[in-house]
Amino acid sequence: MVKDPKNKYIPFVPIKMEHRAWPDHQITHPPVWCSVDLRDGNQALVDPMNVEEKLELFHTLVDIGVKEIEVGFPSASETEYEFLQALIDGHHIPDDVTIQMLVQARPHLIRKTFEAMEGAKNVILHFYNSTSTLQRKVVFHSDMDGIIQIAVDAAKLIRELSEPVIRGGTNLRYQYSPESFMGTEMDNAVLICQRVLEELGATPENKVILNLPSTVENCMPNYFADEIEYFIEHLPSRDCAIISLHPHNDRGEGVATAEMGLLAGAERMEATLFGNGERTGNVDMVTLAMNMYTQGVNPGLDFSNINQIRSVYERVTKMKVGERQPYVGELVFTAFSGSHQDAINKGVQYMRESNSTLWEVPYLPIDPSDVGRQYEPIIRINSQSGKGGAAFVMQANFGYDIPKAMQPEFGQIVQVETDRVGTELKPERIYELFRDAYIDIDAPYRLIKHAFRESTDGTGVSHVTFEGTLSHKDTVFQVSGEGNGPIDAFFNAIHGQKMDRFTFVDYKEHAIQAGSDSMAVAYIQLRDAQGTDHFGVGVDHNINLAPLRGILSAINRAVGK
Amino acid sequence: MVKDPKNKYIPFVPIKMEHRAWPDHQITHPPVWCSVDLRDGNQALVDPMNVEEKLELFHTLVDIGVKEIEVGFPSASETEYEFLQALIDGHHIPDDVTIQMLVQARPHLIRKTFEAMEGAKNVILHFYNSTSTLQRKVVFHSDMDGIIQIAVDAAKLIRELSEPVIRGGTNLRYQYSPESFMGTEMDNAVLICQRVLEELGATPENKVILNLPSTVENCMPNYFADEIEYFIEHLPSRDCAIISLHPHNDRGEGVATAEMGLLAGAERMEATLFGNGERTGNVDMVTLAMNMYTQGVNPGLDFSNINQIRSVYERVTKMKVGERQPYVGELVFTAFSGSHQDAINKGVQYMRESNSTLWEVPYLPIDPSDVGRQYEPIIRINSQSGKGGAAFVMQANFGYDIPKAMQPEFGQIVQVETDRVGTELKPERIYELFRDAYIDIDAPYRLIKHAFRESTDGTGVSHVTFEGTLSHKDTVFQVSGEGNGPIDAFFNAIHGQKMDRFTFVDYKEHAIQAGSDSMAVAYIQLRDAQGTDHFGVGVDHNINLAPLRGILSAINRAVGK
Repeated sequence: MVKDPKNKYIPFVPIKMEHRAWPDHQITHPPVWCSVDLRDGNQALVDPMNVEEKLELFHTLVDIGVKEIEVGFPSASETEYEFLQALIDGHHIPDDVTIQMLVQARPHLIRKTFEAMEGAKNVILHFYNSTSTLQRKVVFHSDMDGIIQIAVDAAKLIRELSEPVIRGGTNLRYQYSPESFMGTEMDNAVLICQRVLEELGATPENKVILNLPSTVENCMPNYFADEIEYFIEHLPSRDCAIISLHPHNDRGEGVATAEMGLLAGAERMEATLFGNGERTGNVDMVTLAMNMYTQGVNPGLDFSNINQIRSVYERVTKMKVGERQPYVGELVFTAFSGSHQDAINKGVQYMRESNSTLWEVPYLPIDPSDVGRQYEPIIRINSQSGKGGAAFVMQANFGYDIPKAMQPEFGQIVQVETDRVGTELKPERIYELFRDAYIDIDAPYRLIKHAFRESTDGTGVSHVTFEGTLSHKDTVFQVSGEGNGPIDAFFNAIHGQKMDRFTFVDYKEHAIQAGSDSMAVAYIQLRDAQGTDHFGVGVDHNINLAPLRGILSAINRAVGK
Repeated sequence: MVKDPKNKYIPFVPIKMEHRAWPDHQITHPPVWCSVDLRDGNQALVDPMNVEEKLELFHTLVDIGVKEIEVGFPSASETEYEFLQALIDGHHIPDDVTIQMLVQARPHLIRKTFEAMEGAKNVILHFYNSTSTLQRKVVFHSDMDGIIQIAVDAAKLIRELSEPVIRGGTNLRYQYSPESFMGTEMDNAVLICQRVLEELGATPENKVILNLPSTVENCMPNYFADEIEYFIEHLPSRDCAIISLHPHNDRGEGVATAEMGLLAGAERMEATLFGNGERTGNVDMVTLAMNMYTQGVNPGLDFSNINQIRSVYERVTKMKVGERQPYVGELVFTAFSGSHQDAINKGVQYMRESNSTLWEVPYLPIDPSDVGRQYEPIIRINSQSGKGGAAFVMQANFGYDIPKAMQPEFGQIVQVETDRVGTELKPERIYELFRDAYIDIDAPYRLIKHAFRESTDGTGVSHVTFEGTLSHKDTVFQVSGEGNGPIDAFFNAIHGQKMDRFTFVDYKEHAIQAGSDSMAVAYIQLRDAQGTDHFGVGVDHNINLAPLRGILSAINRAVGK
């Protein structure tokens, strides 16, 4: 890095805006989507896709709902030409899908492209030449007139070659890109696009797509939006054009650039799955679409099974989706922080209780199930997690609904373990910690045998008698007691024993599914004479026995300390 | 995905702006940088860093030039507390670096945090509570007054506990975050921040940092900028505050959000290396800084050796930097497209020829060497590459400066091979293709022996005599000729032979370094009677012999076809 980068880099000069409307706009409907995965995306792969891989990705795009798909640059390589033939000859293109073919504004390439489109039903012929100040200076050594002439000549040739094709029944549309648009003086960009519209005979009924690429992202998204607004406002035949964008991501702002371009009036978006493409990639179609979705706008694309799409993508491109990639990355539905976990739990609970269809869960901008992701594994437990996290895992993974009063103690047990091992704890390990700490702790006190007798008097009040055999270490003893329920009877039975220094505070019991079996789990909270609370958990098929096991567990934990 | 997402998701409601200044601003200087890698970043790791790993990352951040570093949440876990002690006791913190400690606005945690800061020289105490409408509703079941009271009480306690610390010589500053700021009504955000400023006794001389997090990125960056501009304009004690941002990346717009926030008046930025952090991560400090750099603004951070920083990051976090991550990803300085490669070559050539210090290379928004990346491996060759690419590789990797006229033919040879193998070709393979096709093709014609005699007449004109022994398959024959130079003499010598149907068109020779040796390489362009051009290349220590070998190579290639 140089000390004074202004001596090395020429800053982007924003256009002077007399007035500016886009910041007051909103995105209320999706753009026309065009996938450039098979072209821009493929071009940027270390190992480009073969024909079979391209076909699989093409079908995936069709299934997502993309209606315009750039299939390649058939005049540039044999592979691209062959793929196009395979698509057409194999009848892979649905009737409502348009394939787009890219070609430089050069006569022999245009001619080859026309040959390649034979047999296709719906075609967008996409031609381009580079227009930026920089490329004119260092690459083409040409003035703007020369650059315009290239585009106009190409347009003329294309129109000429189109006639037999259109007569032959092909639904042929045109697209022109002033490549390196963002490095072009806006008035020159307007000029060349207007000339192309005229040359192609664009009308409001037969619009031509003007695709405005940020070939290299070279400015902040708001400056981009200014340019798009200016361009649209100054284009004389605006009603004869569909304004399309093609953002790249060199500054990591492709998504914002796309959205602000839409605010500024763009109507169509060229994008790729997961932002594949040259260098830093093209704008990510998934993020753009799902951003709209979370704002209540149906993007017209289906990412309900995003993992499936991702797996096709990773297989055919040999690229890897990042762990933090919005909506799809491995970690994006994971919350490690205790306070986040707690808030997520409360949000889910609020939704359940209020019976609201509205998604109101903090820290999760989207319901993971909307993209086919799982809610269960959202929370993993490491040393950064709070009490809520461990409880959530027990609930989500094993069905244990740990009472609130018990959660801090269990959270503490988990935290000691995570501090000790220094790594994330898997749900199975959390369960082990819970089991080892709470369930059926049967020493020193153990229940050997028991019997209940139960009757109801004429007023409906229960009378329960408990008789049991307990052991304390090696000593076996009998107890019996009565009460208005099993727990009461048991407590009365152990009255007078050494274990009677505990008072009963709270109790909760619920069923859990264990395999095909249903088990009862009882959480017991006792309090000793010093006011300290002790928790225990009992699990049994018998819903009367589970609490007894829980009580003994709590007592055993207390006297064992 | 649901069909009508507006029944499930509540769209962000942008603030009504009477006037709006930020879109006319520019970023002319960097913000104060604060790294939250050791806190937000660490919290979001599957395996959080241990103390040694944290220390290594801390030193890396210091070396980059970050002056404010959030080191953790010492009241939340033992590991964090221990790390802080290790930092302080080990004297790892330079005098000009401030460590920042995060704590919830809860009395017992605040007290523990004060214990943890003992011995530190410069400290920012960063406290927060959550303020959003949603969290008030589903998590805290509290009104705004209750939320404000929590912050004010915390501020009061902090000021009280500060007195002995400040007396003890610690340079203690305060930071308050209304967590989930972006989900908070702006007037409420202003209200709570103003009350905190007052309670902490902020003055223009002792400013308090107000950190405005987009805890979950929930809107487009321009709406965010509106909020920041509104917040700043409405904050009564604006001159007593440093406005800090803490963007997340749930919509993939963290970078744009940060930049637009700076346009709107923010002065400080909390960020992480490579955008690590909860879920989709925090804003990427590297991208933000380098975006400024490419616009001529020195970011005040040093990423001159980005690969080294990346390797520390990947090792300690066990995360992976994506292949397309701006400025650092493996593929971001790679161009596969032939036209891109051609334009890059021309840009580099233009800079060399014009002796300009300005970076004017198409498709490369930054000089890779500014971040310690290599320029050589930029171009790889696959079936998408054009002629320029293969020539570039030969030049960059092997020093062969292939003449322009020869490039299309060689590009074609390479393309056939890439179409055949379907994968990228490594430079070594490109070289093999070149060697096998052009260099010293010695059948059917072969030079067995040769001699030159050279003299200069009184007028300075050279006379060269060539005598040589050639073979054609098994036939050996002698030739001799004279001319004004070696090539001319050789051509005259073979006049009358069967090989004389070629005319000489062009010639270029240069030295290449082969190990410690310098070799001459000569490119020869001949034309046959039908007007077809034939190229050959000769390599020899002897600069007179290299062209002869090249000529024979061209002839052999032509007759061998």
